[in-house]
Amino acid sequence: MNIGFIGLGKMGANMVENMLEHGHEVVVYDKYVSPSLELKAKGAVQASGLHDLINKLPKPRKIWVMVPVGEPIKEVLNELLEILEPHDIVIDGGNSNYKLSMDWSARFKEAGIHFLDVGTSGGMSGARHGACFMIGGNENAFKSVEKVIQDIAIQDGYLYTGPSGSGHFLKMVHNGIEYGMMQAIAEGFEVVEKSSFNYDLEAVSHVWNHGSVIRCWLMELIENAFKKDPDLDGIKGIMASSGEGKWTVETALDLQVPTPVIALSLMMRYRSLETDTFTGKVVAALRNEFGGHAVEHDD
Amino acid sequence: MNIGFIGLGKMGANMVENMLEHGHEVVVYDKYVSPSLELKAKGAVQASGLHDLINKLPKPRKIWVMVPVGEPIKEVLNELLEILEPHDIVIDGGNSNYKLSMDWSARFKEAGIHFLDVGTSGGMSGARHGACFMIGGNENAFKSVEKVIQDIAIQDGYLYTGPSGSGHFLKMVHNGIEYGMMQAIAEGFEVVEKSSFNYDLEAVSHVWNHGSVIRCWLMELIENAFKKDPDLDGIKGIMASSGEGKWTVETALDLQVPTPVIALSLMMRYRSLETDTFTGKVVAALRNEFGGHAVEHDD
Repeated sequence: MNIGFIGLGKMGANMVENMLEHGHEVVVYDKYVSPSLELKAKGAVQASGLHDLINKLPKPRKIWVMVPVGEPIKEVLNELLEILEPHDIVIDGGNSNYKLSMDWSARFKEAGIHFLDVGTSGGMSGARHGACFMIGGNENAFKSVEKVIQDIAIQDGYLYTGPSGSGHFLKMVHNGIEYGMMQAIAEGFEVVEKSSFNYDLEAVSHVWNHGSVIRCWLMELIENAFKKDPDLDGIKGIMASSGEGKWTVETALDLQVPTPVIALSLMMRYRSLETDTFTGKVVAALRNEFGGHAVEHDD
Repeated sequence: MNIGFIGLGKMGANMVENMLEHGHEVVVYDKYVSPSLELKAKGAVQASGLHDLINKLPKPRKIWVMVPVGEPIKEVLNELLEILEPHDIVIDGGNSNYKLSMDWSARFKEAGIHFLDVGTSGGMSGARHGACFMIGGNENAFKSVEKVIQDIAIQDGYLYTGPSGSGHFLKMVHNGIEYGMMQAIAEGFEVVEKSSFNYDLEAVSHVWNHGSVIRCWLMELIENAFKKDPDLDGIKGIMASSGEGKWTVETALDLQVPTPVIALSLMMRYRSLETDTFTGKVVAALRNEFGGHAVEHDD
């Protein structure tokens, strides 16, 4: 299949390699030149910009976009909306908010262009060797790109989820679950690490990955991490987030679904970004006011 | 290896079958007769009681106990403490509290008897075909029963964790993590189920099990459940618990380790046991008092 690919970051570059390996002809573009050059060496066709990219593709064009959310995806989709033609297909494989994807789908549809919102999971190794895809949007448009999705997905690793937004919605909830699972695993390891027993955390994660109820890919990843750094001394406990957890909680609020664990996992991420908290200052001040309890002063 | 086995419930009976399959000679006892008869038909030696069981074993005896926590395990261990002899080895493979196991270990040690606290994970299928074991206690005692543990464990599925208590402690935390993972997965599925998209939950769990970041054994189990009952209409949302989650939270409190997600998962289990709550009554009463908001009355 001829396919255009925009965005050659950690996920995108691996997906293009995966596509090339499966015999697809991929025209690539990234705002930085070096990933395009690397992929050109592996058989991709390098485009100098979006115009050049669409001119290098047969009609109807199939274009996979894998760029960060926010301004980058907005800019790319706006430009594609201007230069593409009816029957072309745009695939947003990034972590876009499903509501925005529904809006984009409507705007593209007015121009006769199909827009698929594709949630992509599996990390860099998945992108390279077989990822997991959740695909929302027009079903015929999906079918016309199904072959390339099937090729770069792991066996059974893709699902057409229904109308526009349903792919990114499902990926959003997937990430919300991921937040909760990661926080639960992490809390458990902190109890193990702080216990009076002197556990080997790599050995613990290793045995938990073999036959236990909590065996999972995340446990395998943390086993790898403990192998490299037995007590994670080289890593700060700062837990960034990229929006999906927040949107899951916002969506749960809109739907009035109690999701305390996912919400609290998100809050614990925010907490980890603060070295001191105003909450802490308020509670310390109150304890001092009513009970004369000592407060620590900032130097 | 000659081994005695006390407690032939869902886990125990499967473990005995697993041992028999690996050529071990197992003398079995359960307070109910029928599981012993079934295992006798499969090659086990049936004992009529604990006295009979220990008389049927060569010295030093190796006895695996797999009975429920609380009174049942207390009764069995008390009786074994009376009738066993120095150098015998008792294995508690159940979900005992690690503090109690440390006490039992000390009491058995006074009598010259070894006590191993073994956390067992993997469910019934694991018990039958390869489980995961975390083993605390005297290392030489562990080594003298290692062969049978290795045989009924999955490859790489056992770990000697150190002194008495360390096996059950680790299993306790394992279950705490399990609570959090299960709650996170469940909350995500409730968001998916309540969304305006019409997802096939079996298909969703299936695709999440193929290449996604959240692929795990628990996700495979829920896929099985959705296959049998697509919207779980036949199941009430009552989440029982058996102590391990509570002990994890208690331990976290003692160690002053923040484990909000594990704690909240436990609280949500308690909430699920109540059809109405006193908390709810108090909040409804307060909203009525200050704002005249309507309250619903119990009939």
